Amino acid sequence: MNEIDRRPLLRAMFDAAIAAAQPARCLPPHLPAPPKGRTIVIGAGKASAEMARVFEDHWAGPLAGLVVTQYGHERPCRRIEIVQAAHPVPDEAGLLATRRIRQLVCGLSEDDLVIALISGGGSSLLVAPAEGLTLADKRAINAALLVSGASISEMNCVRRHLSSIKGGRLGAACHPARLVTLLISDVPADGPIDIASGPTVPDPTTCSDALAIIDRYGIGPSPAARTLLTSGAGESVKPGDSRLRGADLRIISAPQRSLEAAAEIARGAGLVTHILGDSLEGESRELGKSLAGIVRQVAARGQPFAAPCVLLSGGETTVTLKGSGRGGRNVEFLLSLGIALRGLGGVHALAGDTDGVDGAEAIAGAVLAPDTLARAWSLGIDPCVSLDRNDGHGFFQALGDSVVTGPTLTNVNDFRAIVIDAAPRKAP
Amino acid sequence: MNEIDRRPLLRAMFDAAIAAAQPARCLPPHLPAPPKGRTIVIGAGKASAEMARVFEDHWAGPLAGLVVTQYGHERPCRRIEIVQAAHPVPDEAGLLATRRIRQLVCGLSEDDLVIALISGGGSSLLVAPAEGLTLADKRAINAALLVSGASISEMNCVRRHLSSIKGGRLGAACHPARLVTLLISDVPADGPIDIASGPTVPDPTTCSDALAIIDRYGIGPSPAARTLLTSGAGESVKPGDSRLRGADLRIISAPQRSLEAAAEIARGAGLVTHILGDSLEGESRELGKSLAGIVRQVAARGQPFAAPCVLLSGGETTVTLKGSGRGGRNVEFLLSLGIALRGLGGVHALAGDTDGVDGAEAIAGAVLAPDTLARAWSLGIDPCVSLDRNDGHGFFQALGDSVVTGPTLTNVNDFRAIVIDAAPRKAP
Repeated sequence: MNEIDRRPLLRAMFDAAIAAAQPARCLPPHLPAPPKGRTIVIGAGKASAEMARVFEDHWAGPLAGLVVTQYGHERPCRRIEIVQAAHPVPDEAGLLATRRIRQLVCGLSEDDLVIALISGGGSSLLVAPAEGLTLADKRAINAALLVSGASISEMNCVRRHLSSIKGGRLGAACHPARLVTLLISDVPADGPIDIASGPTVPDPTTCSDALAIIDRYGIGPSPAARTLLTSGAGESVKPGDSRLRGADLRIISAPQRSLEAAAEIARGAGLVTHILGDSLEGESRELGKSLAGIVRQVAARGQPFAAPCVLLSGGETTVTLKGSGRGGRNVEFLLSLGIALRGLGGVHALAGDTDGVDGAEAIAGAVLAPDTLARAWSLGIDPCVSLDRNDGHGFFQALGDSVVTGPTLTNVNDFRAIVIDAAPRKAP
Repeated sequence: MNEIDRRPLLRAMFDAAIAAAQPARCLPPHLPAPPKGRTIVIGAGKASAEMARVFEDHWAGPLAGLVVTQYGHERPCRRIEIVQAAHPVPDEAGLLATRRIRQLVCGLSEDDLVIALISGGGSSLLVAPAEGLTLADKRAINAALLVSGASISEMNCVRRHLSSIKGGRLGAACHPARLVTLLISDVPADGPIDIASGPTVPDPTTCSDALAIIDRYGIGPSPAARTLLTSGAGESVKPGDSRLRGADLRIISAPQRSLEAAAEIARGAGLVTHILGDSLEGESRELGKSLAGIVRQVAARGQPFAAPCVLLSGGETTVTLKGSGRGGRNVEFLLSLGIALRGLGGVHALAGDTDGVDGAEAIAGAVLAPDTLARAWSLGIDPCVSLDRNDGHGFFQALGDSVVTGPTLTNVNDFRAIVIDAAPRKAP
């Protein structure tokens, strides 16, 4: 078969997914009416500095505020102060910024307006240990959670109950001011409580839920943390709390919308697209195997979809580190997909993190082509060894197939697109 | 929502999948013309005794033969001798049976006919270490492979190159008799070389492929085994070998056909079915998460399929044992699916092994209903703890939701069906 090169199309789809989630595009329609009193802008997350920049560009009235973002994600703001702090393990800078944010919303009146600009990553940037806990306590638990195998949702439940700002506490502190939270979602089902641990969102989970998670994954919390949970002193702000009544939550951008933007590009190229899910989870390499099974079925039998077609998915997978390579969720997925496809012709794929950083370096992801494995072998690179070493970036970079976007100023989680051109062969 | 109870439908679908793979149904159409000379029946696999029984029932002429099957899978045959041996780690009984099978096909003429009845599991039943190797050598490598993380296909490549019967060698030994192999497939893409390690099928892989696999997964073979591979003395029968020219291979039953039989039942109940793949692979619990992501998308957005619908899949997943519970691939998948669905209404599922044995006991699988997790909690069973302990059978048995079929006399691998009744809600 003459292979069509789908790399330019895949890159255009990825770019469209990112563009759809840009604060400059999706925030302006959500600006609230100006208040009689003051306007205070607060926020936390990887996209929150850019959200702040767009907000102040479009806000006519007076304005003050402070937003904390991850190192390297700052944006030039004139009226809103941008502070940078550490992610995913919190640092002193985040602690100080959080304290100042609390002070900003303290003592407001009913005539005032608080705008909270929340995006993924905010959970470790907005950090205020509950009374009796130290930052070291929280960092230790956070680090243990990150390698425990606990889901994002479970990690956040624990974090909310060891915090004096998460789980609606920051929102409650804004009372009696009017509160509008603008959210960029990077979580399953776009649940606001899970985006940055829901600092302005009432929390239906409890201390005993958090305790069950800690015990399930064998996290050893400090004695102070355990006391906080067992005594119930760590309880978050619950649904129905009068301080959050009337608070407005608006999801301005979400994984599904970005997948639909990418689907639009594929449709423009004459390809039928199928969105498998906006929140696929699980171990990256295992998702690669699962989706390879579906791709093989499409290619071999035209089930459950006829080829040519595009399979799209979002969500956040996990990588259980075993090797010492340079990797990330998306390149790990892609390498596993390639291996599981066993050189199947007519299949191209792109996987990337919409924040531009897959893993720990400034590489968003990579592209897989039908000849990827053969080219690797010809360079003396064994794809299975690369995968065992969690060396996805090393693998795709050696082939010149990395996808680099630079900081995208947004974050709607992972993006995966698979183009299947292979014509169905006769079923045996 | 008023839940429809889909358990009877799911069970009917599973039963139809198994029925479609019964030798009694699918073998008779494949009987070859009788030979001028003798007819010798040989075979190996979990389904091979039943294949032998059906064959002799339908064969008018004279007949002799020997078939080796797994302990507990014997069937009453009058003319073909049935020998039982160990699976998945070979034993002395398999070794002796294999030697007798080789003797049976030795010295045949062009007028004779050999029928080979091959099904999954045959790889460890049909065992003849290559010259210089002991059964202990092979058992050690086999046991190491089974826990290494190597795929079935990789394990079989190694086995074929340490054997004097696999990889076409038994077929070559039948020469110059006419050879007809009837296969029940339990492997991806129904590749005959992968079913029971292809004793009658030419093998395109080589000693150096086997060596690469052994090194990749850190299997420490005995010095004799390593010598066999490095010297090339273990080379199997290659495509083009004149001894296998004219040999006839017929796949009489396969995972896809069983999935289609199940789809027919669902259609009869008015449900649209989608076959995601007949060979989905990967870690069982991770496949549960992946498919849960697709189910959530169907339920929440009507993508990539409109509800109500049925998602079907086959193939063989793996379980990396961590706990000491009673489990199997299918119940592990199902429990993980249930947890990942987080109590989503309107979703029922069944996962089972078509041979009737999921894991190590006589339980084929289980059924998941929307209230499964709630019922578990009310009995004091934490689903996450059950999954951590690999205790799928313990979990579903306590709820009365195990699926027991007894020995099914066939094996087309795993069967998974998910019925989604949930109506799409408006996308946020």
